[in-house]
Amino acid sequence: MKFSVSQEKLSKALASCGRVASSRAGLPILETILLRCTKTELVVASTNLELASTTRIGVKVDDIGEVAIPAKLINEVVSTLPKGVVEVSLEQNAKLHLSSGSYTVTVNGMKTDDFPELPTINEKSAVQYEINAIEFKQTVSQTIFVASKDQTRPVLTGVYWHSFDGTLFAASSDGYRLAEKKIIPTSSEIAAIIPNTSLGEATRLLSDDINEVTLLFDTDQVRIRIGETELTSRLIEGKYPNYRELIPASTETKISVDTEPLIRTAKLAGLFSRDTGGSITLQSNEKEKTLTITSTASETGENTTVLSANVTGDGQVSLNSRYLLEVLSVTNQNQVKIGYNGKLSPIIMTSAEKTPDYTHIIMPLKS
Amino acid sequence: MKFSVSQEKLSKALASCGRVASSRAGLPILETILLRCTKTELVVASTNLELASTTRIGVKVDDIGEVAIPAKLINEVVSTLPKGVVEVSLEQNAKLHLSSGSYTVTVNGMKTDDFPELPTINEKSAVQYEINAIEFKQTVSQTIFVASKDQTRPVLTGVYWHSFDGTLFAASSDGYRLAEKKIIPTSSEIAAIIPNTSLGEATRLLSDDINEVTLLFDTDQVRIRIGETELTSRLIEGKYPNYRELIPASTETKISVDTEPLIRTAKLAGLFSRDTGGSITLQSNEKEKTLTITSTASETGENTTVLSANVTGDGQVSLNSRYLLEVLSVTNQNQVKIGYNGKLSPIIMTSAEKTPDYTHIIMPLKS
Repeated sequence: MKFSVSQEKLSKALASCGRVASSRAGLPILETILLRCTKTELVVASTNLELASTTRIGVKVDDIGEVAIPAKLINEVVSTLPKGVVEVSLEQNAKLHLSSGSYTVTVNGMKTDDFPELPTINEKSAVQYEINAIEFKQTVSQTIFVASKDQTRPVLTGVYWHSFDGTLFAASSDGYRLAEKKIIPTSSEIAAIIPNTSLGEATRLLSDDINEVTLLFDTDQVRIRIGETELTSRLIEGKYPNYRELIPASTETKISVDTEPLIRTAKLAGLFSRDTGGSITLQSNEKEKTLTITSTASETGENTTVLSANVTGDGQVSLNSRYLLEVLSVTNQNQVKIGYNGKLSPIIMTSAEKTPDYTHIIMPLKS
Repeated sequence: MKFSVSQEKLSKALASCGRVASSRAGLPILETILLRCTKTELVVASTNLELASTTRIGVKVDDIGEVAIPAKLINEVVSTLPKGVVEVSLEQNAKLHLSSGSYTVTVNGMKTDDFPELPTINEKSAVQYEINAIEFKQTVSQTIFVASKDQTRPVLTGVYWHSFDGTLFAASSDGYRLAEKKIIPTSSEIAAIIPNTSLGEATRLLSDDINEVTLLFDTDQVRIRIGETELTSRLIEGKYPNYRELIPASTETKISVDTEPLIRTAKLAGLFSRDTGGSITLQSNEKEKTLTITSTASETGENTTVLSANVTGDGQVSLNSRYLLEVLSVTNQNQVKIGYNGKLSPIIMTSAEKTPDYTHIIMPLKS
């Protein structure tokens, strides 16, 4: 194997593979990156058996060949080399030789015999979606933080991509809260749970020059194509709960309030809610057009904030301040709508547009 | 106590006190900040018994008084409040009431009876230095990282500020390396060891509007005055070693080399020096005008870099790549000078000016 390549291109390709390779310890071969030079391009790939990353880059090929090279070390070496052309050649005993100007490095690699086969997907029969990159990023950021970290219910550790009523949705829940994002109209049928970690890795690949993301679903895998990189992830097995029945159709109390002061208020209230499991209390007042938020910690102090708000229906509810803060940080709107039916029913939050594309449910706390 | 104050001013004053107060666990009173409102100003102070921080800010005073308030909580509260005027009043049972627009907070404080007395210093008899803020920051950053973390030799855990031959110097060492910075001409005599932690805290107070730092030394304390804040630190007891005898007067090998490629080379060489305790080898060649740096790790690989350099005297020496990287990151010069007398003598590095104000010594490793 012998080729020359720009340091920037190689470094970028190695970075995304490095995160996949090193994310699961175990067999040494899983901690390597496969470099495969064909007659026309260089394939840079890694896998942790759940997720595989493959990037194809144009290089000047002198000789084909392949090697598996320790992921962390090759990343550090190439990112330290100066910008410009790097000459790469494979020598005896899987030694990879890199040179750039006066810098000469030899990294000991491994033969590729034990490197796992890269996952394939039948692109013709797969269900395909093209999604605007900004929309994709927002979808992931608005759902991923809600998914459960608890491995005892695996289906909740991913985001549920599914079609419903002619629309593609992404939804997630940890049992205490729920997020649902409308993405695009669709005529295809899909119901697939993508692991959180795979979606997180996908968003890290989004750079300013990426306009579109392609998702290809087959029965047990999804391929996410972002620029020159393809991530292929297994899907989580199992049936996602029918979460729609948890969303209240209407609420007695309806509040519209500015996002920025509400964030400040939730932070302040959170400071005095550590004794009470994060509990803060919302009280709406239709006549005075206010939303009052209070929290009390017997040891350390208390606080009360009265926000101007458009209110229909007086009502009180308590919820976890962290949950409120987390959803407010991803709504991207100047105003939010909050609705609830008394103290014991779910609290619904939506962005303030006429037809909101994002719905968030938080279960109340007993006050 | 009752006063009103700008949120920005109060938040800034609390931040520096917060770091001092929380830096040592123990007595609850040491985790508080003292707020003392006099007829003309607000004194914000904290101490961990080694270091005390005091900031005086102008406030609109309605009523004098004082309280000790939990440092972490009051910092979080005030930094969360919006910009603008904060009304502060002390109520019964040491409850501190803060309000700003629609935000109202009560933080439970403590009486000030147990708050330690703030350290005083006899400013008239103290030895005083006024140092340009940029020069002060550079002095600290070029010495602090070398000082020892090992508490078994306390004198080495600080920076030795001392006069010598009509000049003020700062020096530090951990036994393996040594840093010395020339600061300003002086006619006063001083020899004082300032704890690393106190100097670190002082540099965190330097903002763009600070032009000058004043140091006042008495026999066992130093007061560092930065803007409206005064840090008063105990000095480390003991006699600093006579480090000057370790600095070689001249060296057989003299190398001038560009800093940026040397940093890159040291990083690259460091990647293959983990088996050998960080050891990398420098070899100068006067005839070819090169400095060659090599490292070898039998398991993972090896590297060689040949840098252009001005060389007098061929010679080889091995040293720790991390030590080399750390000093290069604080030299602030495009070129550095390296000198050594064979494999077993200290390596001397200086900035590349004609009369360098910074000298760094690294002990060699056996190669």
